Formats: sequence, structure tokens, C-alpha cells
Amino acid sequence: MNQKYPSALLENAVNEFAKLPGIGRKTALRLILHLLRQDDATVDNFSQALVSLKHQVKYCKVCHNICDDEVCSTCQDKSRDSATVCVVENIKEVMAIENTMQYKGLYHVLGGIISPIDGIGPADLEIESLVERISTGGINEVILALSTTMEGDTTNFYIYKKLSPYNVKVSMIARGISIGDEIEYADEVTLGRSILNRTLFNESYRI
Amino acid sequence: MNQKYPSALLENAVNEFAKLPGIGRKTALRLILHLLRQDDATVDNFSQALVSLKHQVKYCKVCHNICDDEVCSTCQDKSRDSATVCVVENIKEVMAIENTMQYKGLYHVLGGIISPIDGIGPADLEIESLVERISTGGINEVILALSTTMEGDTTNFYIYKKLSPYNVKVSMIARGISIGDEIEYADEVTLGRSILNRTLFNESYRI
Repeated sequence: MNQKYPSALLENAVNEFAKLPGIGRKTALRLILHLLRQDDATVDNFSQALVSLKHQVKYCKVCHNICDDEVCSTCQDKSRDSATVCVVENIKEVMAIENTMQYKGLYHVLGGIISPIDGIGPADLEIESLVERISTGGINEVILALSTTMEGDTTNFYIYKKLSPYNVKVSMIARGISIGDEIEYADEVTLGRSILNRTLFNESYRI
Repeated sequence: MNQKYPSALLENAVNEFAKLPGIGRKTALRLILHLLRQDDATVDNFSQALVSLKHQVKYCKVCHNICDDEVCSTCQDKSRDSATVCVVENIKEVMAIENTMQYKGLYHVLGGIISPIDGIGPADLEIESLVERISTGGINEVILALSTTMEGDTTNFYIYKKLSPYNVKVSMIARGISIGDEIEYADEVTLGRSILNRTLFNESYRI
């Protein structure tokens, strides 16, 4: 439905907001009316935060994660295991893995995943720079931590092939039943995979 | 959970976005990563649209709707019925009513609704200006088109009392079964009200 807005400024703002993924025109209007009720400084800060981020953001030269310096704090952290590199799709996965407090190695952010349907090929991702990073040596293990989707599998396989000439162990995060899930409701592929990849019982794994 | 962001600029942008109603930190991050993938101009336009709106927005001197001039195009429209004023909570309701193409009168935007729990009293709303508008004459009917909630009822009653000294008809939009709804699933209050306020059968009302 073509809505009539009483103000061109308002319509323009709604148009801009509605370009965001998952934000329709009704939500856009609701968010903008909220911002209009705030004072000028709030709206200025909101805008400025976005513009500053967009113009000043840097990507770590080593792992390609978003950061404020040339090299991110994780890559600079000497207490971390620099011989292990975890390959992830995006910064969100870095944050999720960091939150588990179970990983002390470094990262490599691909900036996406191979997806022919979206027109994303290997050349659009940080795969060449990963190969280069491995070829310079000092890395023993590459952990592939991509989504368990068709695209994730394709990307995993592509990277695995690219790294095969090098003397580096390539591993993959475990796939299996989520903790808290009931076996009864698990899908067959996951359940089948979790039986094939069973691990020795270990007291310390108890929830 | 206290997330660790790899960039202070990013964290700042997420903080600003997450202040919006209904936008959590995960959604904020997703939207910002989307904006980061766009070119600079897109982000600049987005920010500029908000800042321009906030700094340049005007409110119609007559009906208090958002507009770009001193008096909005609806209030200036000579073809509309200036003797009828529809009282609404906000600009969203003006747009919704305009979309029905069933109303040709003018509006009065309260800018909210009486809600003691949110600390909103009559003085925070454009009620005094409505009374003034009525007292100057030329208006025959005031249609109350507020939400059918406790707050809407309270505001309706307050306005009704305020307007009682003046020679103006005060009406209220019909409450009843929504078109397309099944009687079986209607709540008792709505169904009871729809029986009390039954209207004469009219061919032209057929869906």
C-alpha cells in the first residue's frame, strides 16, 4: 500500500530506515516517531555513531575482524595461542565463540560464506589471505567454524582443498545434538552424525 | 550477557541502535553490519535523513500533525470539511484513517494519550489547543478516534467533559466486530457492545 506521509522529511527518513533488513515501513515509522520524541542530542549522537563507525572503521590486517587499530587486540594478545586459527564467517561468530571462554587461539574472519545464489564466490572472501597466512608458517591447526548449512559445507571443502598443500591440521567444530535438546526431537542427519562422531565418555563433559 | 566488541566505534553504534524500542543488541549488531557493507553514501544519507527530520520538522499550528510548513496540507485543503475534526493519538492514526478514503474532515493530533502509568497527563497533550480550536467556533462535530483501551477511554472521557460547555457534537468511532472476524472468536465485551450499538441493516455496508 502506498502510504501518504504528511511530511517529505518524514517520508525520506522512513525510506532510509526501511532499507534495513527486517525493517518494514510500519516499523520504520514507529522507530522514527520514537526518535522524534527524543531531544536533538540523542538523534545527533545516533547519527554520528553510525557515520563515525562507517568512515573510521578498520579491519585487522591479520584476521580481518572489525577493529579500531591496524591489528586487533585479539591478534596482539601474546597470551593467546598463535598456532591455532579459527575460521569464521563474520564478527558475530567471533563474539559468540569469545563468549564461550573455551577458545584461546586466534581467528580468521572470511567476511561471508561461498553462496552462488547470492553471487558470493571465493574471491569475495578472505580466503586468499588465509592461505597466505598459513603459507608463512607458525600455524599448526586451522579450525573451521562455519554454519552447518550447504554454503558452510561448500566453503569448508573449498578451504580444506586450498590448505591441503600445506603442513597444517584442518579440523571442524563438532556437529551433534545441542546441549539441552531431547534425542527424540533431533533430526536424523544430526542424530546420525552424532553417533558416527561419538566421543569417549568423560566426567568433565557433564553439564 | 555482557558482550565484548572488538571495536569501540562498533560498540558505540550498537549502543545507540539498541536504544530504539524493540531493537535488542543482537538486532542492532545485525543492522549495523548490514550498513557497514553498504557504501559510504548510503550510510551518510541514512544519518542525514534522520538529522534533517529532527532539526527541520515542523508541527502544524492547527492540527499539530507533523508537516513541512506552518500549516499542514490537510488543514489547508479547502475541499475538506472544516466543520468536522477527528481527534487522534498520533500521526500514525492520521495516516491509517486517510488510507481508508472514508473521511474528508480535519484532524487534531493529541501527541499521545492520558496514561498515568507513563506519567502522561492532559497537560502533556494537545487538549487545551483542541478546546481553544472548538471555542473559536466553526466546528460542528468532534469525532474521538482513540484506541479502545483503558487509556483511550480515559482520554475520551476527559475530552468529552472539557468540550461539554461548547455547542459541539462529540462522537466516537464505532466499536464492534472487525470485518473478517468470526463471531465465535470475538471477546465478550466487544460482542456485547456490538449488539448494544447495532445499526440498521444497509445494503451499502456489504463487504
